[in-house]
Amino acid sequence: MDKLYVIKIGGNIIDDETKLVSFLESFAEIKENKVLIHGGGKVATKIGSQLGIESKYIDGRRITDAATIDLVTMVYAGLINKKIVAQLQKLGCNAIGVTGADGNLIPAVKRPVREIDYGFVGDVKSEMMETRNWQSLIENGLVPVIAPITHDENGQLLNTNADTIAQEVAKSLSSIYEVSLVYSFEKSGVLLDVNDETSLIPTITPSMYEELKSPLAGGRGSIFAGMIPKLDNAFSALKSGVHKVIIGKAENLHSLIEGNDGTSIIHE
Amino acid sequence: MDKLYVIKIGGNIIDDETKLVSFLESFAEIKENKVLIHGGGKVATKIGSQLGIESKYIDGRRITDAATIDLVTMVYAGLINKKIVAQLQKLGCNAIGVTGADGNLIPAVKRPVREIDYGFVGDVKSEMMETRNWQSLIENGLVPVIAPITHDENGQLLNTNADTIAQEVAKSLSSIYEVSLVYSFEKSGVLLDVNDETSLIPTITPSMYEELKSPLAGGRGSIFAGMIPKLDNAFSALKSGVHKVIIGKAENLHSLIEGNDGTSIIHE
Repeated sequence: MDKLYVIKIGGNIIDDETKLVSFLESFAEIKENKVLIHGGGKVATKIGSQLGIESKYIDGRRITDAATIDLVTMVYAGLINKKIVAQLQKLGCNAIGVTGADGNLIPAVKRPVREIDYGFVGDVKSEMMETRNWQSLIENGLVPVIAPITHDENGQLLNTNADTIAQEVAKSLSSIYEVSLVYSFEKSGVLLDVNDETSLIPTITPSMYEELKSPLAGGRGSIFAGMIPKLDNAFSALKSGVHKVIIGKAENLHSLIEGNDGTSIIHE
Repeated sequence: MDKLYVIKIGGNIIDDETKLVSFLESFAEIKENKVLIHGGGKVATKIGSQLGIESKYIDGRRITDAATIDLVTMVYAGLINKKIVAQLQKLGCNAIGVTGADGNLIPAVKRPVREIDYGFVGDVKSEMMETRNWQSLIENGLVPVIAPITHDENGQLLNTNADTIAQEVAKSLSSIYEVSLVYSFEKSGVLLDVNDETSLIPTITPSMYEELKSPLAGGRGSIFAGMIPKLDNAFSALKSGVHKVIIGKAENLHSLIEGNDGTSIIHE
């Protein structure tokens, strides 16, 4: 199986032009097949407030109304995505910037209204993702750069969490590639103590994770609280066939990929 | 040679949702290979004025400053492009929305500053367009939907006239397909009398064109004044290998393609 890196770059890096350019240089140098998924950063909020589109929250959860889906489509799929593509092209990387609507890469469904109506938010229909749609790009030497927008196959664009997209793409492509899923952001990786960047845990296996989560692990349980959803997702990705999940600092992308930095979440 | 339709849809249709949806339905039904190029419409001007980005003109020519290239990238490549893609996907057409930066489809150069500095406006580098970049999409059953943005291969996005892009794409792909270039807009085609939609000229060949432009043609020269640049471009496209150029009403797309409506510009 050929190797493929599915790399998510976080919003804080998108907002910092110097860090972004440096990250893209490292990304462009990766010789194996690769896919980049980018978050949104603060640009959408800034442009939204200039346009009089306020960010709405219910119980701390962001709501995507009609004006907001237009806004994020403009900013994520237009401004941010195309700037990244132009930079990557400059670096000799044959990037193609797309959303989940393009080539029907990521079919989704509008999140059903239960206690909260999230508005135009999409949940990925994993079982409907077709690897051949991805292969037709990747095997022609193209590097998909994905903005976190999907569609319902019925004409409606949907806002979708970029971490989730990265995970779903990694899972789906695991049937045809040996996929490493990389979450790159401003932190060094999974830390034993969130306030101490030197307390990095280099490797976590499922059994280590159970131990780390356990109250018997000497208080470590509390340290992990914020990371548990991310790690649960990472282990879920492993179970679905992803070879490896790596979490770490965007500026150390090469070391992350080589396993010399960040936290690697691997099978036993 | 396989047939390919390169279809430009004008800004006035983009602005009218009913007309746009109806056009996209006709477009989706075309069975041959196809590429759609869309203009910008008035949305960019509207959103620009909300963002305090005023449209700037020198001697009647629009200037693209740094704020404006960001604006048109958002609106053309984000909002308009992705809404069209989502609609086409709904209609079963496997659209992929891109700019000239994506997959390096349309390399361009920032227009040199002579009497006027147009800012971030791109002139297409025809000789650098690579048909295999297009083939890798089209031959995988994808339908490219092009927003009128190009890049200088050095990281800079550039605003580029959609008519020009359509022409350059048609010329370039003529080496591998039998290309019909269709300019679809709100008018019936080339009219003998611009105020009379029934005065449509169904066919123009190069020799007829010379005659129509001639002052000997009984005043018809003046009737044609506004159409001359468009027609000069159309004949230039024919000379560069394009099979046929069709100009006509967007709502009659099928008739245009079948040669039953609009103006066909053809070889003798």
